Amino acid sequence: MLDKLRIVLIGTSHPGNIGGTARAMHNMGLADLALVAPRCEVYGSESHARASGADALVSNAKVYATLEEAVGDCTFVVGASARVRHLPWPMLTPRALGERLPGECAPEAAQAALVFGREDSGMTNGELQRCHAHVHIPTNPDFSSLNLAAAVQVLAYECRLAALGADDAPDTPFGVEWDNPPASHEDLERFFAHLERTLTEIDFHDPENPRQLMARLRRLFMRSHIDSMEMNILRGILGAVNKQSRALARQESHDGNG
Amino acid sequence: MLDKLRIVLIGTSHPGNIGGTARAMHNMGLADLALVAPRCEVYGSESHARASGADALVSNAKVYATLEEAVGDCTFVVGASARVRHLPWPMLTPRALGERLPGECAPEAAQAALVFGREDSGMTNGELQRCHAHVHIPTNPDFSSLNLAAAVQVLAYECRLAALGADDAPDTPFGVEWDNPPASHEDLERFFAHLERTLTEIDFHDPENPRQLMARLRRLFMRSHIDSMEMNILRGILGAVNKQSRALARQESHDGNG
Repeated sequence: MLDKLRIVLIGTSHPGNIGGTARAMHNMGLADLALVAPRCEVYGSESHARASGADALVSNAKVYATLEEAVGDCTFVVGASARVRHLPWPMLTPRALGERLPGECAPEAAQAALVFGREDSGMTNGELQRCHAHVHIPTNPDFSSLNLAAAVQVLAYECRLAALGADDAPDTPFGVEWDNPPASHEDLERFFAHLERTLTEIDFHDPENPRQLMARLRRLFMRSHIDSMEMNILRGILGAVNKQSRALARQESHDGNG
Repeated sequence: MLDKLRIVLIGTSHPGNIGGTARAMHNMGLADLALVAPRCEVYGSESHARASGADALVSNAKVYATLEEAVGDCTFVVGASARVRHLPWPMLTPRALGERLPGECAPEAAQAALVFGREDSGMTNGELQRCHAHVHIPTNPDFSSLNLAAAVQVLAYECRLAALGADDAPDTPFGVEWDNPPASHEDLERFFAHLERTLTEIDFHDPENPRQLMARLRRLFMRSHIDSMEMNILRGILGAVNKQSRALARQESHDGNG
């Protein structure tokens, strides 16, 4: 299970936190570190010093320009975050995350990611809305800003406990053997782009005045953990709507010309 | 309960670990830090820098010459340690420690201590034998040396969970307070009927040869536990598709008549 778990750090500004994260990961048996647009030197002496024996994880860390790329192949993406202000999103405790992971990681094509935001400003709303769920580490309300590596340490610890106890956990995200592999993050993003185009086309959505429409639809579909066949069905439905729109446009232009 | 819990560090050699410990403690609502024979500067700039806002815990830390003195008033002393080699000692997992703490801390005169050894050599046998029990954080057998502040972070987190007591998660399916009530069963059934009519209208669905289409769509939407506003959005989308279908039908019949 732990080999299907990626730690993703967005916009890290202190190399010590990259090293501390690598050490925390290696301590708990995690190896896959991805860095999105780091704002500090990644492979320098300061990150290696804090890694303190987990240097290989730093050296092997992959750097990406966007979260999209870092989690493109992922079937389960969880963002570490305090509560979202405007639009509630499914929220797990670290323990509940541990309980879900064995099932989420069971399918052969499964790949999970735990995403951590910037030291100073966390994750953007757009980044948070790319997650299936959020996880919040309970902290002292008067002093809630966990050090980044400390937050990774706590969640990696819960992941390790979950992996040690995974024998009696369900085999899929749904507690029952499933018929299709989960859709990947890339599939989902293509679907959301297609959905937005289609809703614009049928005059249901105005990209100039989006309100929370796409955020709410993302939340709805992310929650349901779409499988690959369901994804094909949804794309097929959008295709059928597009076809009708084109037919209508042809008719109208035909009338215009006629 | 957390106010009866002392963190004791023995022979710490890096001031950053004192600061990191203070920050981890304050994050989890602990305040009582005791240092036994520290081998570095305690109240200097390096420990304060890593404390990052938990400075008061560093300033208030008490320094003792021996473990004896640091835990003299304690009724429950637990040492953080890997397994003892010669003489087996009661061993708790971090989670089992959390489960025991509320009871241990219940008596009015109760005072508990979690003791952490030196960065390089841990606790001596004499120190370990002054503990009621030992606690071991499960780690990667190939890389088991946790950073001191990281070990404090993990155990302090378990203490906080124990103090929060029974699951205090909000009373919704999503682990967070939700913005809209769930859709009713009736709403759902009306939606599925509307969805099926619409899919038929756009020639995506053939009721004469339904295969598993509606069953799969039901499964998908039932899983996501649709709320009432999401339900309105989905019905609105179907309505926009219906409107387009009617426009197309009008055009075609107009052409047919023309």
